Amino acid sequence: MNNKIKETIAAIGPLNAIASEAARQRQGQLTKPTGSLGRLEELALKLAGISGQARPHIKNKAIVMMAADHGVASNGVSAYPAEVTAQMVLNFLAGGAAINVFARQVGARVVVVDMGIASDLPTHPSLLVRKVGYGTHNLAVGPAMSRAQAEQAIVVGIEVVEAEFAKGLDLVGTGDMGIGNTTSSSAIVAAFTGLAVADVTGRGTGLDEAGWLHKISIIEQALRVNQPNPHDALDVLTKVGGFEIAGLVGVILGAAALHVPIVLDGFISTAAALVATEFYPPVRDYLIAAHNSVEIGHRVMLERMELNPLLNLNLRLGEGTGAALAMGIVEAAARALDEMATFDEAGVSEKTDVAHIKR
Amino acid sequence: MNNKIKETIAAIGPLNAIASEAARQRQGQLTKPTGSLGRLEELALKLAGISGQARPHIKNKAIVMMAADHGVASNGVSAYPAEVTAQMVLNFLAGGAAINVFARQVGARVVVVDMGIASDLPTHPSLLVRKVGYGTHNLAVGPAMSRAQAEQAIVVGIEVVEAEFAKGLDLVGTGDMGIGNTTSSSAIVAAFTGLAVADVTGRGTGLDEAGWLHKISIIEQALRVNQPNPHDALDVLTKVGGFEIAGLVGVILGAAALHVPIVLDGFISTAAALVATEFYPPVRDYLIAAHNSVEIGHRVMLERMELNPLLNLNLRLGEGTGAALAMGIVEAAARALDEMATFDEAGVSEKTDVAHIKR
Repeated sequence: MNNKIKETIAAIGPLNAIASEAARQRQGQLTKPTGSLGRLEELALKLAGISGQARPHIKNKAIVMMAADHGVASNGVSAYPAEVTAQMVLNFLAGGAAINVFARQVGARVVVVDMGIASDLPTHPSLLVRKVGYGTHNLAVGPAMSRAQAEQAIVVGIEVVEAEFAKGLDLVGTGDMGIGNTTSSSAIVAAFTGLAVADVTGRGTGLDEAGWLHKISIIEQALRVNQPNPHDALDVLTKVGGFEIAGLVGVILGAAALHVPIVLDGFISTAAALVATEFYPPVRDYLIAAHNSVEIGHRVMLERMELNPLLNLNLRLGEGTGAALAMGIVEAAARALDEMATFDEAGVSEKTDVAHIKR
Repeated sequence: MNNKIKETIAAIGPLNAIASEAARQRQGQLTKPTGSLGRLEELALKLAGISGQARPHIKNKAIVMMAADHGVASNGVSAYPAEVTAQMVLNFLAGGAAINVFARQVGARVVVVDMGIASDLPTHPSLLVRKVGYGTHNLAVGPAMSRAQAEQAIVVGIEVVEAEFAKGLDLVGTGDMGIGNTTSSSAIVAAFTGLAVADVTGRGTGLDEAGWLHKISIIEQALRVNQPNPHDALDVLTKVGGFEIAGLVGVILGAAALHVPIVLDGFISTAAALVATEFYPPVRDYLIAAHNSVEIGHRVMLERMELNPLLNLNLRLGEGTGAALAMGIVEAAARALDEMATFDEAGVSEKTDVAHIKR
């Protein structure tokens, strides 16, 4: 395997138990009943464990939005034509997409990466062109990419997150754009879990019943033709993945190696996370699931990785939109831990047995 | 009934269907698959209907945090001593509580109102002293307050929100502080719904099993002694309510009259909303439920009002913390509607039958 990938994985260690314990102790002294901030308290300890800081700060945030085309789009698996991948990337660069709006609101920068769009886009200062190819091959008739391409895409993801880290990065969110990529993601889930394709396949951007049945048959064909090996994560990625998904695998591995927490967006991002965790299970500890998407295969993956999503807003857009929305919650968890007064500082009485005495 | 309350209720009209329809039409032209932003899309239409603006802006935000003491606290219904109400209010004024942290993050001001704390606090420029009494009477032995006090507290709430509106107010969140107020809130839910007290009573800030059983017996006693009339919302509020709860009823009615959407925090705020909707059902349309609290009576009320909470983070702190967290989501819904590019503007192809043709 590629040396860069090997080195990155070797750098992913366990969470910092000392920082996490220090955070837990501080949490218990803050002016609120123990546990009353619910999931925000768990989240704060996780952020401490990942960052190695007892009072982690979430200041520098980025959404890494990877885009690529899918050969399988020619099979009519999406409600939108394949040209929309490139058109939406131009929309991201112009700041008009939902991810731009939500990222602006939470103060996250959006890093747009062309991992393999089928056309050449005009150069743009905010566009990283890291094409691994001009769209994948059609996974319904053979492997989506070569093993070398899969590794190349992972390395790109690692390098992109390393470059962002150099600018300052406390939290990274994943985003995707690629007409046909729910087909690829469903194939990934089915390959790893062995579940029936119909149980992990949704309607993507809006298929009708006939379109959905067609999509299922295409995925079943892809699995039959390619026979991805569930015990070889790179084989699954190569045969039924996508360039943006492979890139996101790299972003996830790279961020974990740098002790940066990763907020996973929806179905496609989570498919990338599944590949990453099947590849190297300890990466799981660095993941935060933003939301539970409408796509039915999403929950299957979250359960397999034992991730409990923060939001349940019936989103199914991708782009990193759910990740950006969840960043506000993640930041709040860190801020509460860092900024709240302790009982001592505020002169507030702690929980007592007064209730029992007075009864 | 008090004239101010009558006038306020008379000013609460139906939502603006024209603005809501204009928002729906714009929503359908934005660069995303229809419906892909899930609950944010519904929320945006609601904001349009409430504000009367086709593209509502959520800029000026306030959390109105009302605090008061409860006579029933002397019965040992809370894990914390009654002094904590005043101590926490000082903490709010100093900016050290969870609500301060979350409000700062979302850019909301926190308006702290003393509705009836049992002691006199030092004057502070950010503290509105609007005492209706020095704590309520013990609801376990008689009415918590007089009908005149309940009306007075509602009027205070209306006036507080009117004053905030004069400063600019696009979104208001409710918050509460009052040792003993989950007892009062559970009594309110039980009174209106007729459900068993045990089914609507939680552990508040952290009671053990014995404390919980004791709390239930106190609430049962309160209902037996007071016999609140479920068909007279003001009677329920008077007999088993609290000054901060009554004040929040006023905030809710007042905000609805001013066409300002209201983000309800948790159990206590929602009890106030239940009183307001039982009082005048159309106010329901102006409410946004922030989150689903750990308190079991909370869900009962949300279902009765047909409100679907935005977040599910196992919070049980109050103060308006859940409302502040949800404000980020509410703002995102409005921003997406306002700031996203349309398909035309961005030159993105709309959903087509390409998929079907190519199959």
